[in-house]
Amino acid sequence: MKKLDILTTGGTIDKIYYDDKSDYQIGEPEIARILRAMNVAFEWEIRALMRKDSLHINDDDRALIRQAILASDDEHFLITHGTDTMVETAAALGDVGNRVIVMTGALNPARFIDSDAVFNIGCAVGAVQCLGPGIWIAMNGRIWDPRRVRKNRAENRFEPV
Amino acid sequence: MKKLDILTTGGTIDKIYYDDKSDYQIGEPEIARILRAMNVAFEWEIRALMRKDSLHINDDDRALIRQAILASDDEHFLITHGTDTMVETAAALGDVGNRVIVMTGALNPARFIDSDAVFNIGCAVGAVQCLGPGIWIAMNGRIWDPRRVRKNRAENRFEPV
Amino acid sequence: MKKLDILTTGGTIDKIYYDDKSDYQIGEPEIARILRAMNVAFEWEIRALMRKDSLHINDDDRALIRQAILASDDEHFLITHGTDTMVETAAALGDVGNRVIVMTGALNPARFIDSDAVFNIGCAVGAVQCLGPGIWIAMNGRIWDPRRVRKNRAENRFEPV
Amino acid sequence: MKKLDILTTGGTIDKIYYDDKSDYQIGEPEIARILRAMNVAFEWEIRALMRKDSLHINDDDRALIRQAILASDDEHFLITHGTDTMVETAAALGDVGNRVIVMTGALNPARFIDSDAVFNIGCAVGAVQCLGPGIWIAMNGRIWDPRRVRKNRAENRFEPV
Repeated sequence: MKKLDILTTGGTIDKIYYDDKSDYQIGEPEIARILRAMNVAFEWEIRALMRKDSLHINDDDRALIRQAILASDDEHFLITHGTDTMVETAAALGDVGNRVIVMTGALNPARFIDSDAVFNIGCAVGAVQCLGPGIWIAMNGRIWDPRRVRKNRAENRFEPV
Repeated sequence: MKKLDILTTGGTIDKIYYDDKSDYQIGEPEIARILRAMNVAFEWEIRALMRKDSLHINDDDRALIRQAILASDDEHFLITHGTDTMVETAAALGDVGNRVIVMTGALNPARFIDSDAVFNIGCAVGAVQCLGPGIWIAMNGRIWDPRRVRKNRAENRFEPV
Repeated sequence: MKKLDILTTGGTIDKIYYDDKSDYQIGEPEIARILRAMNVAFEWEIRALMRKDSLHINDDDRALIRQAILASDDEHFLITHGTDTMVETAAALGDVGNRVIVMTGALNPARFIDSDAVFNIGCAVGAVQCLGPGIWIAMNGRIWDPRRVRKNRAENRFEPV
Repeated sequence: MKKLDILTTGGTIDKIYYDDKSDYQIGEPEIARILRAMNVAFEWEIRALMRKDSLHINDDDRALIRQAILASDDEHFLITHGTDTMVETAAALGDVGNRVIVMTGALNPARFIDSDAVFNIGCAVGAVQCLGPGIWIAMNGRIWDPRRVRKNRAENRFEPV
């Protein structure tokens, strides 16, 4: 892996809580803070494409993500994305040539104690170096083919279909 | 201090995040988990009176909190409460006799990394043993007379009036 | 409380782990990082007097701590100190006039998940504003007279004598 | 991946601090706690083979690890191990047939805030599902061939040789 090209789109992983509004909002990409803290031994670059809850990601957003991938000469991509429509975005990315793309996110905000964010990013980073071309999802400790996984919202976990 | 009588009412301190609803709700009182983890060397008892954002605490709720205090023979009380109307509830408690009551809460949920919850509970616990009778607020590291403090919502901190 | 005068001496609260030596050492005072993160609404100043495991604190060190207190015109002091000889140092400080001095530390390094450091500092901060002149110890959630407390090393907690 | 067979041997990842001895010792395998908290969607089994600082792992220990691998019919293995001699143990495992083995550990104890333990386990879990047969090391966010990596102790990181 020459370089890891990271695209962020928002989602729970980047949610922070604002007490003055009794509300959460999507903050700075947590993945940058995490990769620095982990002192990773590879080159990476980050582009924050949008800050959206994945329920609000639409066709235009997905076209933008696809353009950001195709405009790059890199081979390895990691996309952070809200979990509710991660599978839909994976399907919409279409043919990406020889690129290896792993999508991940979090079921609990990275700023939470016991969040799955650091673990999920680890899974995605470990997998992206070892996978062949295509689009993959790293959630709940597994590397999924997006066509064979769904989020079970009631159980708050990803499961095979 | 013979015993610390703890009343919980909800507020940000107990907020947890539910990804399936992309929403925060008020969970179990965090103070119980914290005092157990801290292995405190005093006797304490907890009553969860309500689970409300403090913007929703009304006159009936305040009457209930007052009743819960007056019905107890204990001298030392710690009340966890949302920060937005903590000052109003303190004013509504009225005459509490010889009791020492410290109110506290959190500007960030206890489940967050860098939450002020543990620190604030520490301040309240340290102060309640040393204060004379009356009602006090422990926020931002200070022990305030409720008549001389307000929450600055824009700055998300308590400040003198 | 006009200002809180903080003296640090080392101890477990400031211990950090160095993998290359498979050893811990005493690092920067954690209390400064904690008070900044907690956004406290009072003025404070910190002096790092030494960085010692409290088993290595000797009579000269205790004389130095006493001098640092007496040389200051402030009224309120917080001293962080290793737990093994905190009681001995409290006894050695002698007559401190009208000053209010609270000593605290931690049974687990502040850098540990579930450390008691933040809670103990909270207790000390809450108490120092409410106590009368004298020297006090804030550990395990209680404010102790140093003549009536000891560390139970086997149980790793402070208890009355 | 039908099942992940986890072997633990000790190392910094499992170190906990004992204040009464002012010492670190190796505790229960942290990986079990972490995988449960992360709610992973695969089957796993754990065997705690030893609890050693990796500087104390000798030829007999390495023979034992090898036996534990060969005695299993599983294909996928994750080994947690101290970082100082992780490379040596990888070399000593020799021919493991069609098995996929990923070794990982931590440069800071898992119980520390900002430990690399959760991230490293994530990397190892993500990689083990995607790699071909052989022995690999997951540290500092990279999946290394053990013959082409070393620990730089002064810098406290893994780097290519």
